[in-house]
Formats: sequence, structure tokens, C-alpha cells
Amino acid sequence: MFDNIDRTDIEQLGEFGLIEYLTKAVELTQPSTIKGIGDDAAVLDFSGQKMLVSTDLLLEGIHFDLRYVPLKHLGYKAVQVNLSDIYAMNGKASQITFSIGLSSKFPLEAVEEIYEGALIACKKYGVDLIGGDTSASAQGLVISVTSIGYAEEAKIAYRSAAQEGDLLCVSGDLGGAYVGLQLLEREKQIFLENPNIQPDLEGKDYIVERQLKPDARKDIVELFEAYDIKPNAMIDVSDGLASEILHICKASGVGCKLYEEKIPIDPMTYETAREFGLDPTVCALNGGEDYELLFTIPQDQYDKVKNQLDITIIGYITEQNAGCEMISKSGNVHPIKAQGWNAFSKEK
Amino acid sequence: MFDNIDRTDIEQLGEFGLIEYLTKAVELTQPSTIKGIGDDAAVLDFSGQKMLVSTDLLLEGIHFDLRYVPLKHLGYKAVQVNLSDIYAMNGKASQITFSIGLSSKFPLEAVEEIYEGALIACKKYGVDLIGGDTSASAQGLVISVTSIGYAEEAKIAYRSAAQEGDLLCVSGDLGGAYVGLQLLEREKQIFLENPNIQPDLEGKDYIVERQLKPDARKDIVELFEAYDIKPNAMIDVSDGLASEILHICKASGVGCKLYEEKIPIDPMTYETAREFGLDPTVCALNGGEDYELLFTIPQDQYDKVKNQLDITIIGYITEQNAGCEMISKSGNVHPIKAQGWNAFSKEK
Repeated sequence: MFDNIDRTDIEQLGEFGLIEYLTKAVELTQPSTIKGIGDDAAVLDFSGQKMLVSTDLLLEGIHFDLRYVPLKHLGYKAVQVNLSDIYAMNGKASQITFSIGLSSKFPLEAVEEIYEGALIACKKYGVDLIGGDTSASAQGLVISVTSIGYAEEAKIAYRSAAQEGDLLCVSGDLGGAYVGLQLLEREKQIFLENPNIQPDLEGKDYIVERQLKPDARKDIVELFEAYDIKPNAMIDVSDGLASEILHICKASGVGCKLYEEKIPIDPMTYETAREFGLDPTVCALNGGEDYELLFTIPQDQYDKVKNQLDITIIGYITEQNAGCEMISKSGNVHPIKAQGWNAFSKEK
Repeated sequence: MFDNIDRTDIEQLGEFGLIEYLTKAVELTQPSTIKGIGDDAAVLDFSGQKMLVSTDLLLEGIHFDLRYVPLKHLGYKAVQVNLSDIYAMNGKASQITFSIGLSSKFPLEAVEEIYEGALIACKKYGVDLIGGDTSASAQGLVISVTSIGYAEEAKIAYRSAAQEGDLLCVSGDLGGAYVGLQLLEREKQIFLENPNIQPDLEGKDYIVERQLKPDARKDIVELFEAYDIKPNAMIDVSDGLASEILHICKASGVGCKLYEEKIPIDPMTYETAREFGLDPTVCALNGGEDYELLFTIPQDQYDKVKNQLDITIIGYITEQNAGCEMISKSGNVHPIKAQGWNAFSKEK
């Protein structure tokens, strides 16, 4: 049916390019729309608090592989991933909708497991499941989540608000989810070749959990409140540190310096990356799916963050013309490049 | 991977049974959640106006067939279907999120067409597109829409608020979308057998459009406001009149009398149904996808609706023990049964 129209390959554009391309004709007309497309969540004004909305689509064979992702974990992760976008606005998540499309290969008990995982996540984060849609699917499993939250207007952290001189900070540690995925992929291959061999994940709990059961950083948003820290710009690390840094810099019209030696990497991530012949720094920069929070704060808030165990200062914001650069452990300067995680390039 | 757990067939439950089953463990804990699962949209309290949220998943091969649904119409319809849920709460739609998952068989121009259709719908209804997700899909086309709206608390029409003695009313006419689908299916078969034969849809514009380009009844909600009509209960007709009536009666704990002769059916719908050997009343009762509004109003508002050209009084609400019954044209009494449109029974 597309014979008579020109073809442009979506793959060439990449996900962000496609979104940019498709949404350029979008007009905002509602007075209640403060911020539409272009950040982790949309901001709506319903008097008093600002409401935050974010949505994600998770598709079998693209975002997950049912051969090694337990269904309960999948439901849990689908919610986490989406709540993470609300926290990345410095907001409080309050509700989600959860939709599933599933083929007849799934028995009821399987769908129940997915829901159970979703509800465990809801309970843990104090979020209400308020709606959704459930449908047959002609092919694979489809999950769509929309999360809703709120924040005081003055506290909302857009990705466009980084200022020259800001400290660049990140929560937790990076690269673990990606290295965990390598481990699961390896065990899947071994299992496919010989189903009698049990997966060997012993002692690797942390990184396997980083991949299968990531936790959105609600606690960091609470820490900000407790210590009266106001991040200028913030984004969650879903596509890898490099990609997220570039998002903040591009949106804010600034540059940055990132210190390789400061990037927080868990020892198990480091060690396992080495086992796979991977550079741990590259895993942190380009791996993605860590769902940590990357943010910038004014220098005068340095005293408030310097002793927080779960926050690391990894660099600082510069003027735009200085570019986005990483200073390596050996002192060399490299431009930061986004490899990110491109769903479109994963198609076979 | 499901070998070691008991199997229960989802098909046996049907869509509503599945939702009921899966959501029974859902707990609401947020003070801002006024109404979660169980109506056309969720109601949230963000001070002042109540916010309305609804979400839908549309899957290729289940909800649409790309062999006869033009992509622009698909984008348009995906938005309409979802906005319809906000209007069915007597609310005003204000924002949507629009997510697409698509396989590599789609060129950029195709995705653009879908978006274009969605944006035409947004423009027509004065709704902002505020977010979404775009992803590769390993299989078919996936569309997920979440719509957001608002209403004064006193005006919200839940499906559970029908009162004994209420008049049962419906907007527009029914059965057209279903008969239009039969027509498109027939032409598809002819085309598959001989691609040189052009589709013969001449003079059938109205019902083809009812199927491909339905319009959510924002105008009816505006009419309610203009004439100070407050429906007690309301629902949109997505699964067929019979199914929707039973939803209202079950949720409200009431019965009803429906008069077959009062059911509004367009002459073209009637005539074409006959051509296909179908009973036009059955098409209205069980066809679905009309996206008209079905609602109940107190008898003292009769004067306000009796002269509205686009509203038909089709029956009245009784006490629960009287059951849900249709009085046929010949005066026979039949219990109303939900055939509805069951996505799960459509799987092959």
C-alpha cells in the first residue's frame, strides 16, 4: 500500500530524530498546557499544583525478551521506567494507567504475574493504578504505561534549565543494567544450546537486578526536599549517561566537562564488564537503563550534596562554545558522543 | 515457559471479566484519586476542577486492518475513540499523549500520515498533544493513546448514577459503524480475489465514514451545558447499545425498558444491513464503534431534551428486579443480552 509514496528510512533518523520530525507540527492551544513534548513528562496546570504526565510503550522483542525476563519483573519494571520520568521532573508520582495487549499464547496466570509485578511497584511507590486497557494482540506482548504526578511549579526541574557553572551530579552508579543484560544474554545463548545447563548468575545478583528490577529514584527526590536542594536541570538515565548529558546541554544551550574518574561504577559492574572485554566507562556512558537521576545544581548548593553518599559530582556546566567534553583518567579530552539506545537500530 | 503453571483460558473470561479479575487487587491510596478503574475515565482531584484520564490501546490485526483503513483515518480514529471516554464523563477533553510502535515495513511517510490524522483530530477538538512514545515494533503497528480532561465535580456523569424513573437517551444514530465495516470487509474480499476491481462504495459515504472516521460527541457535552441538562449516568457506545445499557444498569443497580422502535437507525444503515441479510436492530444493539453517548436524565428534564434533533429517548430506567428488557416492534419482551465486541474472541 506504500508503493505510490516516497520512502524514507526511519532507521536513518533514529528515535529522537523521528520524534522531533513528527512533532514539529504540534500546536499547543490549551491554557492548562505548560509544557508538552520535549521533556521527561508533560506539565499541566490544573490550579494549585502542577500535574505531570508521562507515557511509555514496551514491546516484546524490542524492549524485553521473555526468554529471560520473568513476567512479574516485567510488570514491575514497566511501572518503574515510567515513574522514573516523573521523578526526573523533581515531581511526586501519584497515579498510573497500565495497558496490556497479549496474544493467546499467554494463559491468565501469566497476565496475572505481569499485573502482580506492576502492583508491587505501585505499592512500593505509593502510586494508584487508575486505569488502562486490556486487549488481544495478534502477535507479541505489548505494555503501555502512563504515569501522572504533581509538583510545585518552582520545584519542577526541566532539562532546559542548566546554568553555566552548575555542578553536574548523578545518583547511584551507572553501567550495571547494561552489564547485567550482557550476562543474561550470555546465559540465554548457553541455555538455547543446551537447555540442561542452569544459568550461572551466582554472585551477580546486583547487576542482574539492575537489569531486571531497576528502581526509580523516588528517594532522591525526597532527599532534595529534606535537604532543600533544588536541581536546576534534571533527566533520568534511560539511554546512557552520554546521551542524557547531551540532552541537558542541547536543551539548556550550554556545554560541560565530565570527569571519567568521577563516574560512579559499582565494583561488580566494573569486574563483570572486564570479564566480557568491555570498557566499564563505555558501559556507563552508552549502556542505558540505569534509571538514575542526572542533574545540575548551582555551586552554592555544593555543601548540601558533598556528603550525600548516593550522589556523585561528576563534572560541571560550561558555556556552549566550550563543547561537551570528557576528561579521561589519563587526562585526554574527548568530545562526548551519544550512542544511546536506539530502538530502531535493534530491528532485524 | 508456562508449562509448570495451571492454564486458564483468557477467552472464557472475555475482556470485561479479565479486567475485573485482574484489577480486584488494586488498592487506591492517593487522596487525589476520586475514581480509579471502572468507568470511562479516571477522576483525579488536583484542587478546583477534577481531572479526567483515559487510555486505549489499538493493535493491528485486532482493532484495525491496514488493508482498508487509510493511515490518516487510523490516527484520527485513535484520538476520537479515546476522547469519547472523556466526553462520556460529561467532561471537557484538554490533552492527549499519543504513542506508536511500528515495524520496519513502514516508511516515515506512513508514520507521518498517522500523526497527521491524530493532529487533525486534536485540532478539531481543541486538544493538545502533550507527549507519547515512539518505538520500533517487532511485529504489527501499535497505537496507545491517553487522554486527559476536566470537569466540575457536580457535572461528572458516572455510569453508576442512573436512577429509577430516569429517561434512557442516546445521541445520533446507531449500527452505522458496524454495517460500514461489513461493507469494507466485502470490498476487501473482492479486492483480494481480483485486485483490478475498484471498491464499490458509491453512495455509502455515511456508513463508511461512521466506521473509518467516527466523531466523538463533544457537541453533545456542549449541548448539555447550553441547555443546562445534567445526565445522571453516561457511557459511550463503543461495544454496542446492549452492552452499554447493561454496563449502566449493573453499575447503577437498576433495570430498564428499551423500545426497539425508538432506536435511532439511519436509513442508509438500515438499507445496507438488509442488503447483507442483517437485522438493523441487531447491528445497533451489538455492532459497536458508534461512539455515540448513551445517558439517563431525570424525568423533569424531559422538556429540555424532547426537541433536540440529535437526542432520542429510547426507554427508561426501572428498579433492578424488573430486569433489563427490550420491547420489540411487535410488542414482545426480550431480555437484553450483551454480545458486545470481544477483542479476545477475535483471535485466530
